[in-house]
Amino acid sequence: MNAQNKKITKRDEDFAAWYTDIVHAARLCAYSSVKGCTVMEPNGYAIWEKMQQILDKKFKELGHVNVAMPLLIPENMLKKEGELVNGFAPEVAWVTHGGSKKLEERLCIRPTSETMFSDYYATHVRSYKDLPCLFNQWCSVLRWEKETRPFLRSREIFWQEGHTIHATKKEAEEETKRMMDVYKWFHHEILAIPSITGMKTEKEKFAGAEYTLTNEALMYNGVALQAGTSHYFGQKFSEAYNIKFANKDNKEEYAYQTSWGTSNRMIGGLIMVHSDDYGLVLPPRIAPKQVVIVPIGSDDMVYDLSNKIKDELNKNDITCYIDLTDKSPGFKFAEAEVNGIPVRIEIGARDLKDNKVTIARRDTREKMVVDSNIDYVKYVSNLLDTIQKDMYNRALKRRDELTFEATNLKEMEDILNKQPGFIKADWCGKKECEEKIKEIKGCKSRCITDDSFITGKCVCCGKNAKHNVIWGIQY
Amino acid sequence: MNAQNKKITKRDEDFAAWYTDIVHAARLCAYSSVKGCTVMEPNGYAIWEKMQQILDKKFKELGHVNVAMPLLIPENMLKKEGELVNGFAPEVAWVTHGGSKKLEERLCIRPTSETMFSDYYATHVRSYKDLPCLFNQWCSVLRWEKETRPFLRSREIFWQEGHTIHATKKEAEEETKRMMDVYKWFHHEILAIPSITGMKTEKEKFAGAEYTLTNEALMYNGVALQAGTSHYFGQKFSEAYNIKFANKDNKEEYAYQTSWGTSNRMIGGLIMVHSDDYGLVLPPRIAPKQVVIVPIGSDDMVYDLSNKIKDELNKNDITCYIDLTDKSPGFKFAEAEVNGIPVRIEIGARDLKDNKVTIARRDTREKMVVDSNIDYVKYVSNLLDTIQKDMYNRALKRRDELTFEATNLKEMEDILNKQPGFIKADWCGKKECEEKIKEIKGCKSRCITDDSFITGKCVCCGKNAKHNVIWGIQY
Repeated sequence: MNAQNKKITKRDEDFAAWYTDIVHAARLCAYSSVKGCTVMEPNGYAIWEKMQQILDKKFKELGHVNVAMPLLIPENMLKKEGELVNGFAPEVAWVTHGGSKKLEERLCIRPTSETMFSDYYATHVRSYKDLPCLFNQWCSVLRWEKETRPFLRSREIFWQEGHTIHATKKEAEEETKRMMDVYKWFHHEILAIPSITGMKTEKEKFAGAEYTLTNEALMYNGVALQAGTSHYFGQKFSEAYNIKFANKDNKEEYAYQTSWGTSNRMIGGLIMVHSDDYGLVLPPRIAPKQVVIVPIGSDDMVYDLSNKIKDELNKNDITCYIDLTDKSPGFKFAEAEVNGIPVRIEIGARDLKDNKVTIARRDTREKMVVDSNIDYVKYVSNLLDTIQKDMYNRALKRRDELTFEATNLKEMEDILNKQPGFIKADWCGKKECEEKIKEIKGCKSRCITDDSFITGKCVCCGKNAKHNVIWGIQY
Repeated sequence: MNAQNKKITKRDEDFAAWYTDIVHAARLCAYSSVKGCTVMEPNGYAIWEKMQQILDKKFKELGHVNVAMPLLIPENMLKKEGELVNGFAPEVAWVTHGGSKKLEERLCIRPTSETMFSDYYATHVRSYKDLPCLFNQWCSVLRWEKETRPFLRSREIFWQEGHTIHATKKEAEEETKRMMDVYKWFHHEILAIPSITGMKTEKEKFAGAEYTLTNEALMYNGVALQAGTSHYFGQKFSEAYNIKFANKDNKEEYAYQTSWGTSNRMIGGLIMVHSDDYGLVLPPRIAPKQVVIVPIGSDDMVYDLSNKIKDELNKNDITCYIDLTDKSPGFKFAEAEVNGIPVRIEIGARDLKDNKVTIARRDTREKMVVDSNIDYVKYVSNLLDTIQKDMYNRALKRRDELTFEATNLKEMEDILNKQPGFIKADWCGKKECEEKIKEIKGCKSRCITDDSFITGKCVCCGKNAKHNVIWGIQY
């Protein structure tokens, strides 16, 4: 099972091959015998679990509660909201038989759960006193994708989907914004990914939404990854699914809805922003295991100190383990590197006699020789903070280096031919211009920013601009 | 959304109606527009989350790791293990179309995941060094049940399924036993349910297992609930899916497997063992909210003390909240009762002037007037322990009262006609006798115990007994 032995393609030689090599070498995800579906292996699932823990805690602090809606949606229910069904019907999996019997009505496996939440709210919301409902669910959804890539595009997607319902437009819009802020916080503070956020254009918004806010990250190769969206639905679903409530004046009104989600594709983002030719590199705050101790030799002193450090760190909420397998120290070092353990402590008998211990950080691969009597909790805790900060800053520098400006289509094309990235450009707001830009290597609007205009003229048609937009090629 | 107003049927009048009333009044679960599928509402999901937390922690302490296997299983893969497919094929949901295209091979939604874990192990296990793999997954599975009841029998089941693979028979059998011990511990120590454990008969074991260990709980009405099973597969799946490894002597050998699972039907068990005519009663160790404070009146003193108690309790890992809604105190008391909050603290301005506070326990509905200056952490913590212990002892007493002995079929029939329960009876080991016993109101063997014989003669045919068995009617 030691995929570690496999050579990793160089990142600058073949980014796509490098990505797949990292996924397999760090044993994050494996192919299965089911086309388009993968297995999240222990190392990958542990990252997803930590993502879930941190986000779930934040959701709950903001008053959200978890629920579980049915996996299957009857065809007629899915069809109630026209835009949603148009957006998803071509890519759902249909259940037609239960046991040996053909079903009277076919059911799809949820591609997203607006339908089921709306169905529930329609039955349970009666009065403004029942509002808001701040519901979320952790589950998997299915989309019949043709081309798939581990974590980035898969038939089965692991995610959370928040679905909230409110008595007023104002409150629902605040929720839409607030949850986008959570995703931004999560990327910046936890994943060390300096994402940008803004509004999707009409063309790129979620099917059925009034508007969509999006969190956009830039990968090392300059390709964008959408990682978290928050939708304001207004009363569209309430009208389609008949969700009415008596307001404070005892008048019937349609309720206001939002939905927001992030998925395990963030693991793909983590890899493509931070990792290197030696394997996975994880920001300390999302690393399931933060510190590995590698004892060298069989001296009691070595094991006593290893255990002492491990206990102290674990007691102080730093996850630490000792690698006690019968592999060679060199193999253990390489394995810890491939797996992206942020800090490695090497303890050898000879060094210890000189009161010396070696500490290595994964991100820069620097080795520090320290006095074996240091305060390990303080030292490691500071080091983890430094790594987290440095990783963010390196990603920010890379993002800034790969953020360009364009004032006409020729410039856009030149940039994309040379080195893709985020491209800032003004836009008139017309779909035709957006479609014309897409003809350049599939470049799409990532989001409308609040930034000021560059020239004030549309990058495509040259007419007066309505928005400053970030464009880019996407996964 | 206040289903609380609904009258609850008396438990002794109509147990089935009472059960459904509790489920809805405590807002644990709601019907959905999808036949046979329910919505786990926030109160129900919170209990499931706490079950997951406690079990997951225990699994990890024992070295298990979580993974995620695909939701869909191709038909030809499911068919590889003959007994498994015979056991499950009649009740799976079949996906036949992806988008608008008919699939070349239909896929079923997993009814259980032996197939997918075996497929993974077949590709990834090469040497004894790769073993054991102690994998678990939290997910939902689908079985096309005709009759459904909230938490007890549902098309979609939320559960965990552990699937482990080992180099030796001994180790795999130890794992099978060890995980059954975990389920027993969880029922006795956390759910306050004095379950019994033992081996299933050949007829009742899991399709494809060499043997099945089971955890059996007895409901208040004397009907049994299977709540947790642990299967030893030996090499059966390894042979069917070709999972070979090189052992220490470098000889190829088929690996040894186990699987074990518990589901959200345990919530049904909690209700049917502990609850009463006033609503849900939850053992403190599984209650998502352990203490509610109801402030009465608008005096500052009342709110100051409420906040002080809440903060102190929460700081000491006792989950406590203040009911600040604008309902009447009486309504709040009733709501806390219906929802099964183990301890309620009532703080009123008038009482407080006399240094008095009222504390009520949910299980016995006793009210204690205490000095308002007590050490609340100590008092409440002791009270929660007492409630937990008392609930276990009451359930144990009920179980013992409803445990009978039978030496012939006539006695068995008389017992089941009068009051069902666990029936201990000796058995010759023959399937024909087991089938004859089943004719009495569907009475099935629950498990083979290690207890000594009653008469040494089979309760059915009168021939020499091989086992002492617990029998009963089941959900």
